[in-house]
Amino acid sequence: MGRHSLEYPKEALNKVKRVYALEQIHSLVNSSPLVHVSLSPSSSSSPFPVTLPMIGQMGSFSRPSASLGDPLDLYLHGHISSRLFTSPSSTTSTTNSIPVCVSATHLDGLVLSLSAFNSSYNYRSVVLFGHAAPVTDELEKVYALKLLTDSVVPGRWDAARLPPTRAELQSTAVLRVKIASGSFKARDGETGDDRHDMENEEVRRRVWTGVVPVHQVFGSPVASSYNRVEETPAYIAEYAQEQTRENAEYAVNAIKAQKK
Amino acid sequence: MGRHSLEYPKEALNKVKRVYALEQIHSLVNSSPLVHVSLSPSSSSSPFPVTLPMIGQMGSFSRPSASLGDPLDLYLHGHISSRLFTSPSSTTSTTNSIPVCVSATHLDGLVLSLSAFNSSYNYRSVVLFGHAAPVTDELEKVYALKLLTDSVVPGRWDAARLPPTRAELQSTAVLRVKIASGSFKARDGETGDDRHDMENEEVRRRVWTGVVPVHQVFGSPVASSYNRVEETPAYIAEYAQEQTRENAEYAVNAIKAQKK
Repeated sequence: MGRHSLEYPKEALNKVKRVYALEQIHSLVNSSPLVHVSLSPSSSSSPFPVTLPMIGQMGSFSRPSASLGDPLDLYLHGHISSRLFTSPSSTTSTTNSIPVCVSATHLDGLVLSLSAFNSSYNYRSVVLFGHAAPVTDELEKVYALKLLTDSVVPGRWDAARLPPTRAELQSTAVLRVKIASGSFKARDGETGDDRHDMENEEVRRRVWTGVVPVHQVFGSPVASSYNRVEETPAYIAEYAQEQTRENAEYAVNAIKAQKK
Repeated sequence: MGRHSLEYPKEALNKVKRVYALEQIHSLVNSSPLVHVSLSPSSSSSPFPVTLPMIGQMGSFSRPSASLGDPLDLYLHGHISSRLFTSPSSTTSTTNSIPVCVSATHLDGLVLSLSAFNSSYNYRSVVLFGHAAPVTDELEKVYALKLLTDSVVPGRWDAARLPPTRAELQSTAVLRVKIASGSFKARDGETGDDRHDMENEEVRRRVWTGVVPVHQVFGSPVASSYNRVEETPAYIAEYAQEQTRENAEYAVNAIKAQKK
């Protein structure tokens, strides 16, 4: 139980630590249906960074068999009209890459302690820093699009209409983010309170303490008005059920996590 | 059905539009357990923006009775050690404020079309741009902390141990973000496909199309090991059930949304 954090390891770290931290970080990104991608102000006229919700997945085009514990790139995709793909820095920079911060967060529970100030969330969160550049190689682009499509529902790429048309490939941009650093932060376990509250009998008798588990549900698939396939294919229905069960189990088990 | 967007209205816009856009934008922020707050690179040595998951709520200290359709501030809180509260620009800037981008995103469904490239998510997303500054007035700080605590479970502030201790107020920082602009984007409805795929009999017979609704569940509250209140209070149990029901209803109803 408690707060955990892991740093994206530098070359110097030993092998065991490296694999574990990378695996945790990469797994969380890959199990997040959405990531938030932030870029620095795109022009001197606006002081604000810009954040875009996108689909992202860790992968390796040069070594597709790489595991989640290996160094990987982050792939992102969006429509070419998206702010990220038309950012001035993406065309004027000499390196043709944009510094980005990518964030993936899972909310796992509402932690309600005696004091509002000791209340918290159970959560898992990853932040990655890296340089995003457009993927121009067509084979790499198709690799990334399959990776991203299959992250929504595994097997969907091969099940959908293939191959991509020329217009589809041209209107969809893919970015590869070379990761420079990152970290993993999490909180699990039950509530925690200060001694002065724990010893306050009136407060202990009056204030309920505990955790409300929170998780994401993938519900029953609803066929489109023009669908002609009678039964929902197993790869979709089973994936939805399995993800829902895994998410629910994580949220409940997180509450029982013991102090380390 | 389809894609919707709303801009945070400028003074010039008429009253009706203003209220509607603000209400949509503010409601989405307030129904998000987490927002992602991005700031520009905090020093010249790092090129990367930084994104932090935080609890945020729209409110008005000067006019607590303001409705969601009125102009409001965004309140954020975190531990004073947090990067956001120790950002160099928060102390060196003459205005003592940090430009931030705040993002809140709800995933509502996996939209699986005949072509992977017409596949999408049903979602609702808000981005706000504004200037964040620490709240120094103690009454405003307590107002904001109650607002934020009650956003987790309505009524929790008054139900928990009160009043806050001096140490608690000192170790918790609150930021007020003055909103400069923002926007709301959403996608709802069923799948959509291009004519060449709709007319392809082989593809239509083979590829299932439809939407997997996605929503967040607040599960059964789990009492802590030191809880002494026998029954889960109604304000917690009912809130969890009601939120779960509302979330599920939204995700399913979003699929049925008609084209506008």
